[in-house]
Amino acid sequence: MKNAERIGRLGTETAFAVSAEAREWAAQGHKVYAFHIGDINIRTPDNIIEAAHKAMLDGKTGYVANAGIAELREALAADVNASHGTSFDASNVAIQPGGKPVIGKFILSLMNPGDEVLYPNPGYPIYESQIEFHGGKAVPYGFVPGKDNFGFDMASLEKAVTPKTRLLIVNDLQNPTGAEASEAELKAIAEFAVKHGLYVLCDEAYFDMRFSGKSKTLVSFPGMAERSIILYTFSKKYAMTGWRLGAALGPRSVIDVIAKLNLNDESCTSNFIQLAGIEALTGDQSGSRKIIGILKERRDRAAVILNSVPGVTCYRPDATFYLYPDVTALMKAKGFADDYEGFRKDVLHTTGVSFCTRLHFGRALPGETRRYVRLAYSGIDMALIEEGLGKFKEYAEK
Amino acid sequence: MKNAERIGRLGTETAFAVSAEAREWAAQGHKVYAFHIGDINIRTPDNIIEAAHKAMLDGKTGYVANAGIAELREALAADVNASHGTSFDASNVAIQPGGKPVIGKFILSLMNPGDEVLYPNPGYPIYESQIEFHGGKAVPYGFVPGKDNFGFDMASLEKAVTPKTRLLIVNDLQNPTGAEASEAELKAIAEFAVKHGLYVLCDEAYFDMRFSGKSKTLVSFPGMAERSIILYTFSKKYAMTGWRLGAALGPRSVIDVIAKLNLNDESCTSNFIQLAGIEALTGDQSGSRKIIGILKERRDRAAVILNSVPGVTCYRPDATFYLYPDVTALMKAKGFADDYEGFRKDVLHTTGVSFCTRLHFGRALPGETRRYVRLAYSGIDMALIEEGLGKFKEYAEK
Repeated sequence: MKNAERIGRLGTETAFAVSAEAREWAAQGHKVYAFHIGDINIRTPDNIIEAAHKAMLDGKTGYVANAGIAELREALAADVNASHGTSFDASNVAIQPGGKPVIGKFILSLMNPGDEVLYPNPGYPIYESQIEFHGGKAVPYGFVPGKDNFGFDMASLEKAVTPKTRLLIVNDLQNPTGAEASEAELKAIAEFAVKHGLYVLCDEAYFDMRFSGKSKTLVSFPGMAERSIILYTFSKKYAMTGWRLGAALGPRSVIDVIAKLNLNDESCTSNFIQLAGIEALTGDQSGSRKIIGILKERRDRAAVILNSVPGVTCYRPDATFYLYPDVTALMKAKGFADDYEGFRKDVLHTTGVSFCTRLHFGRALPGETRRYVRLAYSGIDMALIEEGLGKFKEYAEK
Repeated sequence: MKNAERIGRLGTETAFAVSAEAREWAAQGHKVYAFHIGDINIRTPDNIIEAAHKAMLDGKTGYVANAGIAELREALAADVNASHGTSFDASNVAIQPGGKPVIGKFILSLMNPGDEVLYPNPGYPIYESQIEFHGGKAVPYGFVPGKDNFGFDMASLEKAVTPKTRLLIVNDLQNPTGAEASEAELKAIAEFAVKHGLYVLCDEAYFDMRFSGKSKTLVSFPGMAERSIILYTFSKKYAMTGWRLGAALGPRSVIDVIAKLNLNDESCTSNFIQLAGIEALTGDQSGSRKIIGILKERRDRAAVILNSVPGVTCYRPDATFYLYPDVTALMKAKGFADDYEGFRKDVLHTTGVSFCTRLHFGRALPGETRRYVRLAYSGIDMALIEEGLGKFKEYAEK
């Protein structure tokens, strides 16, 4: 069977190849330290599991409305209003089977073929894939190293915009860098979006995954609420990655379209999973606090060890569950210079430490000279973090 | 925010308007007999619910592979092989959040803009919507009344095909008509598909929803296995509509593309729901048999009553959970002739009986003279079937 032409433009997450390689290395009898996985190895809190079970026993096993269960839409609007200062109601919420579906549906709803879309690079590879798949032109912007963390490269944004630019994708509290925009940067991004008449996807997947301070949202800046769609997910805060529960929030005109896409694509999101989502938002929050506590300890320890490794420097972001160390000096010392795959495999085969590199998050931008890798600490326990990064340190010291 | 141009081509299920109207009528204090809903008012069997609960407690709450859990893919391949005579293995299966996602993914994978796609009309309205949305041309074919049931209108298929036709959508055991193709008709459809080099979506959502006899599949005919994608769903057989679990089965070249679309669109289908799907396929089947038994009783009774209504004649299909009576004479007698909406509302407001009409399943075809409505008996108990259709009979007799 011959594929449609558009399939040639469909991208993927090349990080899955790293997972497969790590699995194979482990299957050969080697110990693997899994820093490549952006998943959480902590079980969903009990109250959420029991809410799902109760709902199933109550017969909540039939179809529900395509935009989501009214009570969940209301609860999520209230929750987001509390943290964002927005004034959403249920009609501003379209429940999704995960946060990811919001990316494709945002693009299908607002991008015409030939439109240009600004997206973060390094960044989550699905942005570029969905833009190109649906006939748009994916135009990257970057990040710059700052004092305590990466920041948005406003110069690269300004350089990338053209009269054809229609959409802007922003992932503040960013995967993979952990970048967090300052108040001033957010203001500048908002002004940029308004000035150029762009519609904005605010991918806030890591909004609640923070260990100190308070997350800020782009939608609170003037002109943004009426031009932005928020990607919300239950995956991280409640360790519900494998449940597939998320939502799009924004102006009703777009939310209605996204709900119509739901009806066409998957009818609705699982009934009892949505009811469990109500428990997640409105029930006991101790499970979520425990998750954050565990991740904070891992972050603290991993950042300390990484910064003790020769040829490696690393920020300690206040949010996400990633570290994005600069390994330029180590790669050079080991004879890999800009050979990311050679370096990654050498570390895996010498130490068992498995991670993704910068190239799993998009093509390198012109003039990029520093080398980075991404370590996720969400899927690996403290003892293994210490053991694995200890071996990585030994490797670097040799 | 201004929608993308393609949104103007996105369709919907107008049957939802019927649901909303019925809800409103009930809220005004009227008794409503809900024959409009293609959902099942029977709880999912206990063993499947408990398998999901156990999986959650076992920590099966993280991401799984985009194509689905290997054991579920294997179990489903084995299950379909047993009933279809196919030789699928796990690599021929891409698990989906429901059967419906297969429609859009089949079209995205194989249809280029401008391609023509043959689809059944009356039929499930999402076919037409997804074809037009992604830039194809939806070309309808019809059904003809036979001795015991509707059959495929082969003449309308032959008339509809052009050099631009690329895809054919077949929903044997059909919603809304209950049509079932004979061995000879399936052979003719298969030869037609091969002759014109068409790729085929076999929407087999109702394959296992049958009360006597044995379902036949188009993919068993020469040349079909290599050009067909099967839409499989857990929704009906196991009363799991609200779980959202289904699959695409077919040649690996297309299944790989569909799995790549999974990765882009929703990452994966819920982990513990897939594990419950394994229990559904391989565990105790008494729950599913009970569901079929209940539906058979409802079908038998509803068909008998409908055929006793003046101006109404009705087949009693061996599969699906729909009846599609010819109401031409009754509509004329009541002064509605071809005013479907007038008739539907008059019946609702006079008797409380709520159903969909032919027009909820596509635009009427040229030359269509008979009038039909669709009654689903999956979402309404026997006592209410008898009471509601009794009132409908009184209405007709007046």
